[in-house]
Amino acid sequence: MFDGTVITVRYAETDCMGVVHHAVYPVWFEIARTDYIKSLGLSYAEMEKDGVMLPVTGISCRYKLPAKYDDRLRITTRVTRLTPARIEFEYELRRDGEDEILATGTSSHAFVDSKSFKPLNVRKVLPDLYNAVEKEAGQ
Amino acid sequence: MFDGTVITVRYAETDCMGVVHHAVYPVWFEIARTDYIKSLGLSYAEMEKDGVMLPVTGISCRYKLPAKYDDRLRITTRVTRLTPARIEFEYELRRDGEDEILATGTSSHAFVDSKSFKPLNVRKVLPDLYNAVEKEAGQ
Amino acid sequence: MFDGTVITVRYAETDCMGVVHHAVYPVWFEIARTDYIKSLGLSYAEMEKDGVMLPVTGISCRYKLPAKYDDRLRITTRVTRLTPARIEFEYELRRDGEDEILATGTSSHAFVDSKSFKPLNVRKVLPDLYNAVEKEAGQ
Amino acid sequence: MFDGTVITVRYAETDCMGVVHHAVYPVWFEIARTDYIKSLGLSYAEMEKDGVMLPVTGISCRYKLPAKYDDRLRITTRVTRLTPARIEFEYELRRDGEDEILATGTSSHAFVDSKSFKPLNVRKVLPDLYNAVEKEAGQ
Repeated sequence: MFDGTVITVRYAETDCMGVVHHAVYPVWFEIARTDYIKSLGLSYAEMEKDGVMLPVTGISCRYKLPAKYDDRLRITTRVTRLTPARIEFEYELRRDGEDEILATGTSSHAFVDSKSFKPLNVRKVLPDLYNAVEKEAGQ
Repeated sequence: MFDGTVITVRYAETDCMGVVHHAVYPVWFEIARTDYIKSLGLSYAEMEKDGVMLPVTGISCRYKLPAKYDDRLRITTRVTRLTPARIEFEYELRRDGEDEILATGTSSHAFVDSKSFKPLNVRKVLPDLYNAVEKEAGQ
Repeated sequence: MFDGTVITVRYAETDCMGVVHHAVYPVWFEIARTDYIKSLGLSYAEMEKDGVMLPVTGISCRYKLPAKYDDRLRITTRVTRLTPARIEFEYELRRDGEDEILATGTSSHAFVDSKSFKPLNVRKVLPDLYNAVEKEAGQ
Repeated sequence: MFDGTVITVRYAETDCMGVVHHAVYPVWFEIARTDYIKSLGLSYAEMEKDGVMLPVTGISCRYKLPAKYDDRLRITTRVTRLTPARIEFEYELRRDGEDEILATGTSSHAFVDSKSFKPLNVRKVLPDLYNAVEKEAGQ
C-alpha cells in the first residue's frame, strides 16, 4: 500500500459540469502507480528502458463524489494481484486529510517486452521488481 | 444500437508507448453516447439546458488490441439498462470496416437535476427521451 | 488553403468556465494540418514511417469568442512559409457556416529525421511533399 | 517572479514521438500562474467565487528541447504587464536543478465578471489582488 500520491486538480481537468471530467481519474491512477513503484525504490521509466512495458489491459472506476478545481486530493494504491505475467492495482481517492472516498478504481496490466509487445515473465526479467512488489503486497 | 460514431485518432491521443493512451477511450465513448442520443433525434446539450445532467457514476474498459495515430475507428453503442433514475451503456471499438474488436467499455449514469445535482425521474421530466431510449433499446 | 476540417466540441474539451479550454485549440490545429496534408494526397502518418517528423517549434493562439460543448466548428488552414528545413501554418476557427472568427493560431515546425531528431532537407528527402505544399501554398 | 512550480511529466502527457505533446505546455503554464497567485497569498479558485474570471485571450509557446516521461521540471513565472483590465504572464521551463531552458511561453488574460463575461476593473473589484501583483511585478 502506498498513499503518498497528492494531486492538485488542474483547471484543464474540469469540464462544463463544473467538476473534474471522469476520464481524468485513470490519468491520476497512473501517476499513483508510478509513485507506488518509486516507493519501492524502482522506476517505471527505468523499467521501460530495461525493455519491460506494463500496458493497461483493463480499467474500472466508480465515482461517488465530485472533485473540483484546485482540490488537493490523495490517492491510496494497492497491488491486489501479482503473477509473473500480470499485475492488478486498486486505487482510492480522497480529499487530502479527509476519510470520505470520492472515487475508487482498478487497473490490470500485462508485463510485455517493449520491442515485441509480447508477454514476458517479469519474475525472470526483472526479479528485483517482482520480489519487491510481492513483498510489499504480501504485507 | 448505434454504430455511426467514427473517430480518427489524434496525435495528441497517443503516448510514448506508440499507441493511444488508455484514458482516451472513455472520452471516445462519451462522444459515442452523445451520437447515440442524437440518433434518437435528441441532444445531450439540449438536455442540459432543460435542466437534466447525466453524470458518470462508473466506467470500465477492456483493451484487447492497440489503436494508433490516424487510425479510423468505429464505435458501436448500446443501452444495456434504463430506469427512470439510471442508464447504462456498452461500447465496442473496431477499426472502421473490420470485425475484430479493439476494446470494449461500459458506462453507468444517474439522471440528476443540473442545478441541485439531485436525482430526478427522467420518465417524468423528459418523457420523450425516456420513451425514445426505451423503444430503441428494447428492439 | 484547406477548410475541410470540421470538429464537434467534446464534453471533455470544456472546462468549469463553461467553454472550451484554451489548451484544446492547438490539438484541433494539429488535426487541421493533418487534414491539410491529406488534402494534398499525402499522409503525415506515412511521412513518419518514411523517417520524417515535423515537431512543433512554436505555437500561438488568439481567442476572440468562446466555443461551447457540441458546437460544430470549421478550421481553415494555410501554409504561410515553406523552406526545405521549416514550415509554418496559420489557422482560423469559425462555427461551421458562420463568418465570424472565434480564434486564430499559428504553428512553426522543423523537418527532422525521425530517428536522430536532426534537421533534414525535406525537398531532397520527400520531394513530393515539398513540391505539393509549395504548389498549393503558392496559389 | 515565482519559480516554485514543479511538474513531474505524466505518461499521458507524452505522444508517439516519445516526448511531451506540445499542447500540454499551456496546461502546465496555467498551473504555474495558479501557483504564482497562491504565492501572493491569494487563490484563483477564490477569485472565481468572488465573481472574477481570468479567461485566456492569447498564448504563445516556443519549444527548444523536448521533455520526457517522468522528467521533473520547474517553471518560472513572471507578470510582464498589468492593467486594471488585463494581465500578461511569461513562463520559462527547465529541468529541475538545470539552467538550460526547455521552453518559454506567454499568456494574456482579461479580467471579466464571471456571470456576464464582461470586462471589469480589477483594481476596483479586487484591490488586494491588483496591489499584490503590482507590488510583486514591480520589484
